[in-house]
Amino acid sequence: MISGKNFTVEPWHIRETSFDLDLLDEAESLFALSNGHIGMRGNLEEGEPHGLPGTYLNSYYEVRPLPYAEAGFGYPEAGQTLVNITNGKLIRLLVDDEPFDLRYGELLEHERVLDMRAGTLTRTADWRSPAGKQVRVVSTRLVSLAQRSVAAIEYTVEAVDEFARVTVQSELVANEQLPDSADDPRVAAVLDNPLEAVGHEHSEYGAILLHRTRISELLMAAAMTHDVEVPGRVEVTTGARTDWATTTVICGLRPGQKLRIVKYLAYGWSSLRSRPALRDQVAAALSGARYTGWEGLLESQREYLDEFWDSADVEVEGDPDSQQAVRFGLFHVLQASARAERRAIPGKGLTGTGYDGHAFWDTEGFVLPLLTYTAPYAAADALRWRASTLDLARERAAQLNLTGAAFPWRTIRGEECSAYWPAGTAAWHVNADIAMAFERYRVVTGDDSLEAECGLAVLVETARLWLSLGHHDRFGVWHVDGVTGPDEYTAVVRDNVFTNLMAAHNLRTAAEGCLRHPDRAEELGVTEAEMADWRTAADDAFIPFDDDLGVHPQCAGFTTLQEWDFVTNTTYPLLLHAPYVRLYPAQVIKQADLVLAMQWQSHAFTLEQKARNVDYYERRTTRDSSLSACTQAVMCAEVGHLELAHDYAYEAALIDLRDLHHNTRDGLHMASLAGAWTALVAGFGGLRDDDGVLSLDPRLPSGITRLRFRLRWRDFRITVDVNHENVTYTVRDGPHTAMTIRHGGEDLEISTDEPSTVAIKPREPLLPEPQQPPGREPLRRRLQQG
Amino acid sequence: MISGKNFTVEPWHIRETSFDLDLLDEAESLFALSNGHIGMRGNLEEGEPHGLPGTYLNSYYEVRPLPYAEAGFGYPEAGQTLVNITNGKLIRLLVDDEPFDLRYGELLEHERVLDMRAGTLTRTADWRSPAGKQVRVVSTRLVSLAQRSVAAIEYTVEAVDEFARVTVQSELVANEQLPDSADDPRVAAVLDNPLEAVGHEHSEYGAILLHRTRISELLMAAAMTHDVEVPGRVEVTTGARTDWATTTVICGLRPGQKLRIVKYLAYGWSSLRSRPALRDQVAAALSGARYTGWEGLLESQREYLDEFWDSADVEVEGDPDSQQAVRFGLFHVLQASARAERRAIPGKGLTGTGYDGHAFWDTEGFVLPLLTYTAPYAAADALRWRASTLDLARERAAQLNLTGAAFPWRTIRGEECSAYWPAGTAAWHVNADIAMAFERYRVVTGDDSLEAECGLAVLVETARLWLSLGHHDRFGVWHVDGVTGPDEYTAVVRDNVFTNLMAAHNLRTAAEGCLRHPDRAEELGVTEAEMADWRTAADDAFIPFDDDLGVHPQCAGFTTLQEWDFVTNTTYPLLLHAPYVRLYPAQVIKQADLVLAMQWQSHAFTLEQKARNVDYYERRTTRDSSLSACTQAVMCAEVGHLELAHDYAYEAALIDLRDLHHNTRDGLHMASLAGAWTALVAGFGGLRDDDGVLSLDPRLPSGITRLRFRLRWRDFRITVDVNHENVTYTVRDGPHTAMTIRHGGEDLEISTDEPSTVAIKPREPLLPEPQQPPGREPLRRRLQQG
Repeated sequence: MISGKNFTVEPWHIRETSFDLDLLDEAESLFALSNGHIGMRGNLEEGEPHGLPGTYLNSYYEVRPLPYAEAGFGYPEAGQTLVNITNGKLIRLLVDDEPFDLRYGELLEHERVLDMRAGTLTRTADWRSPAGKQVRVVSTRLVSLAQRSVAAIEYTVEAVDEFARVTVQSELVANEQLPDSADDPRVAAVLDNPLEAVGHEHSEYGAILLHRTRISELLMAAAMTHDVEVPGRVEVTTGARTDWATTTVICGLRPGQKLRIVKYLAYGWSSLRSRPALRDQVAAALSGARYTGWEGLLESQREYLDEFWDSADVEVEGDPDSQQAVRFGLFHVLQASARAERRAIPGKGLTGTGYDGHAFWDTEGFVLPLLTYTAPYAAADALRWRASTLDLARERAAQLNLTGAAFPWRTIRGEECSAYWPAGTAAWHVNADIAMAFERYRVVTGDDSLEAECGLAVLVETARLWLSLGHHDRFGVWHVDGVTGPDEYTAVVRDNVFTNLMAAHNLRTAAEGCLRHPDRAEELGVTEAEMADWRTAADDAFIPFDDDLGVHPQCAGFTTLQEWDFVTNTTYPLLLHAPYVRLYPAQVIKQADLVLAMQWQSHAFTLEQKARNVDYYERRTTRDSSLSACTQAVMCAEVGHLELAHDYAYEAALIDLRDLHHNTRDGLHMASLAGAWTALVAGFGGLRDDDGVLSLDPRLPSGITRLRFRLRWRDFRITVDVNHENVTYTVRDGPHTAMTIRHGGEDLEISTDEPSTVAIKPREPLLPEPQQPPGREPLRRRLQQG
Repeated sequence: MISGKNFTVEPWHIRETSFDLDLLDEAESLFALSNGHIGMRGNLEEGEPHGLPGTYLNSYYEVRPLPYAEAGFGYPEAGQTLVNITNGKLIRLLVDDEPFDLRYGELLEHERVLDMRAGTLTRTADWRSPAGKQVRVVSTRLVSLAQRSVAAIEYTVEAVDEFARVTVQSELVANEQLPDSADDPRVAAVLDNPLEAVGHEHSEYGAILLHRTRISELLMAAAMTHDVEVPGRVEVTTGARTDWATTTVICGLRPGQKLRIVKYLAYGWSSLRSRPALRDQVAAALSGARYTGWEGLLESQREYLDEFWDSADVEVEGDPDSQQAVRFGLFHVLQASARAERRAIPGKGLTGTGYDGHAFWDTEGFVLPLLTYTAPYAAADALRWRASTLDLARERAAQLNLTGAAFPWRTIRGEECSAYWPAGTAAWHVNADIAMAFERYRVVTGDDSLEAECGLAVLVETARLWLSLGHHDRFGVWHVDGVTGPDEYTAVVRDNVFTNLMAAHNLRTAAEGCLRHPDRAEELGVTEAEMADWRTAADDAFIPFDDDLGVHPQCAGFTTLQEWDFVTNTTYPLLLHAPYVRLYPAQVIKQADLVLAMQWQSHAFTLEQKARNVDYYERRTTRDSSLSACTQAVMCAEVGHLELAHDYAYEAALIDLRDLHHNTRDGLHMASLAGAWTALVAGFGGLRDDDGVLSLDPRLPSGITRLRFRLRWRDFRITVDVNHENVTYTVRDGPHTAMTIRHGGEDLEISTDEPSTVAIKPREPLLPEPQQPPGREPLRRRLQQG
């Protein structure tokens, strides 16, 4: 866990105040910069020491074998792995003859600051070389949100107390040596030196390297050029080889003199374009960057972010940790998606190679709600990516003897890459999650065009999937069997409530969508009869309920399964200490599942059911997945356990800033970071949209004095300003002057003319605050108790 | 499928009348010789052409990695694979300068005969070399049942029409090159050249090679020596290198003259003994073989088999195919087990490397019933092997957070080697199958000593496993959840009826065993309270029943699962054409499961339930496993579908003789071969013992005019002689003159004084003969229809 010692709590910055070798990998993830197309981990410019060197291009991957000791029909044979591309961050420094390396000499001061309004990472180092020469190095790095192919670094070296000869080597390096990760020698073989050199060139101030992956045959280009400023004589030379290019800058600095280098980087990749075309593309991007200039890049970066924060910012008064964390989450979710432009938003964004760089249901389920309300163009692009994989999903369905389309559980390009089907293929809900994301986009933006463009095909094909997956039994009940819901500690079951509700929603939404776009529906071959079948299945979908306990079993029979032995088996995460064969048949839950159903399909549950269900599942949920705390926050808030909700919101928000899951080094948890927003906005703001209406019901825990958040709804921008007594709704923009929302379950008209202030509707919890499994009380609570 | 063209139907022989290169691998399996310790595939002496060269020592294996693309806790990391050891079968022949090779020259006649009374494989080849020299080669091979470490080959060459110079090279060859099989390069690396040479020596007439496996570090020795007879001058020399030893015999033969060589082979292996000790062990075995001599080995072989057939033979009048096949089955089951002596009986015996040479529940469930009634000493040794792995099973249970012992789903030495847990670890029933085999042995032999020696510990530890696996729900019902029954198309379910009945039996048997051996029980720490818990769980075990349909669901909810689409998905075996994610939630069955429960726990079902269950499951069983036809035969017979039962019996019996599953090349299906016996004896003989009484109820199909079979029960030998009207029970031996059996459900006293003849009890089927899934009618039926 990252303690607060090195990191300060500030509203708009992530500041590391000293250098800690033990937190190197985690800091690299936290300080990652990305625009959704290019990703750069927060590696030190000088390359070493490093945790995991990482530079990525969205969807630039290599194919790797998926081994099975016992194979089965339909198991994917090949996986996809995000590749560490040519590293352009490298700027090595020699002071006289000694390399600037934090492990040697004396580090007088070291600070790194991620500025979430500027969109930059700035580093300051005061260092005395082993020979006693002191220099001050300041670097500022950005990955441009305005110019998609561009990144840049401003690097200054200042001689502090005596003259120093300074040599800077600014590099492009391909096929960096990475720490070993794969057990399988075949996988290691693929990922060791993944890039095949296909060209290199250089000029005085820069160079271009071209590479291709061996199996996936994706071409990429990386280019750099430099502006150099220094008072005295300077020598600049550049050389290039297949995997390596260096621009060397040599000068002498007297005390107080500075060498300033601006390094411009451009990246591009293509599976189609020729080598000359790609080479020219990055050369043009590089010229564009230099034309804009460093100050211009900084300015456009801030403009882009100003626009984002204007309709996305969340202000949390009384809880500075959450304030910082929710902005950190928003910032990184934006970075993961802003310029992804019809590519996937991976589970870790472009901050690391965790999960092989795959995208999961996290995207549609956790990341897109945030984006839909704050950066809808980015949500639309992510949905377009998903729709672009529809043919692959159709092929997958056909392979599995199903109709329609079966989207992959994990993928980069669209092919199923999950090698463990009980928690992969069987988790069919990903299809309904995708359908719901399309529907949410339509409802929230009021924009039908995306549905017409590509959404309807997804709705129709996923509805077809459900119809072929489910079946009516002889009593007329519609079941989905052999299915895995969100909870990965319970798999291959009958009638998972979450899945059945989501499937029913998928089926109904498809039918409604077809009515909206009859021509498009006809092209897809949809008939009246087919639509009737969808509605019938949705109406007959079985939602098991345990009358005896007054709760919904997560799946058929769940509430009579064996209870987990929480006396002896409490080493978390359980999956690293207990086998699936024991976890699956027990009432132990990895992550919100039935509880998530109550958030996403809120209308299907009474308030009493919600209260009893929360109580039941809280006691059995280990939160061994990062996709749980935010949902528990939302539903605990809804049933009136506001303090507990606050703890969960805090935990969801702090997952990476405190490395709560001990794997931040592999990359940030985009879904949980988005969940930090969800916990506040859907939890304490009470945001719901599953009825097609903007529904809010704010209510704050004692530790938050004021919560102010922004939303886009249709063409309006809304600010919701909540304190313990009342809430003020402010509306801007929008085609009309007024709109109707739901406040605390009742219609409320709000207007662009003036803010509307209404009273908070208090809620007494039906049941006392529930206990969690031993050792799984949420973070803040444990800290207080401990 | 092997047609009858090359193979004749004879009661005591398997005769291949001509040589077919396309059936080479299958014939190698059919003609395999073994004594349970040494196994030799029916490879040609001259080594080539070959399908799969194979010489094996029981439990002599190598460790190999088990790869997982997504690993999980408790997954076995290492597998075990039967190793092809030093080949001593090789006798190469040169006629003048041309190698005797069936692919060249002219093959005038070729015959191979497996003699099931003699226990020998004899081959006759009349061959004309490309240069026109004709020779007659006759070889007879045996793996001695009397002398466990010994095999021998009598090899004669006769010059037919003109003088020939004959060179014979009799060899030992280690690390033979095998056809590629493994996809995984790590596995291939382990299995390519698995034997590390640790010594070799030779004398004039023979040699010894010593090797060791690299990872499992098992030492082995192979030795040969020769007797040579020839009318004229002969030169005999021997040479040896690390992986190779050859005795060369050169002589000239005039027409009609014969060279006769007897090659004696001895094998041994050890994980403990030193190299000199093992070397001396095989040298001594070789001396013993030569001392006995070829004729002596033949004689003792026949004596051993005479004794076996005396209490094991089954005579089938009216159905010559089944007659031959049931003896073929009995012979190979005996070969797989006779001298295994506390080693495993693998699923393929020692006839090939299918299933990596692993033993499964097949052993206790299908092979041991036959052995218990016909060669109880071999059954006892197999049970002792299982008991010897108890500590490993305890460790496995502890690893899985369970008490007691969890025996492996597949193994050679005792460690779990199954890499797919839903059809491995979750198939907990293997533990109850083992317990039941111990109990059957006790009931059938009347011998309590094995239980005292090692059986009780197995009963107690498996009972403990069940108690920790199952649980009482809040209504007092005892469930076993997340379990896989015998049917591998339905997995990880609640309350599989087969499993629950078998578990209950296991629990009760353990409690009863503890009462029989209170001192031993105390040593095992069994308390009164623990025994009471076992009985309570057994009494409360849930046995789901579908009142609406009047059938037992195979597991909870089974009868409301989706029906399999047998209109479009009928490419068998389904598992090669449909994914588990689709198979598991459908009412489609790979192999008898509920139907097997009705055989093994016969007393738990009424006759009407049996009839309705057979009818229901027949329609849904694809018989994609070789463990199904025999069980379907038994239960179809019981409910009165005698003709259908006959078809199944035929199919079970012919599985390898006709290569029905297209994998006989990998080795014979021991369980199905045993099932041929079971189909006749338990099917048409009606043998049951689950009530602790010898219960018979014979009834023949129209195609069998008379069935006579032999059984051992306690110290009696019983012959049951059935025709369409009556049955004659003849008793020999035994401590008393009379014993009570159950005939057709009623007690019948039979006596050693004279045979008892009683009338057959006819049975009208309650329901018409059921249909099978399209394309899955049993073999004979299809042939008739086709």
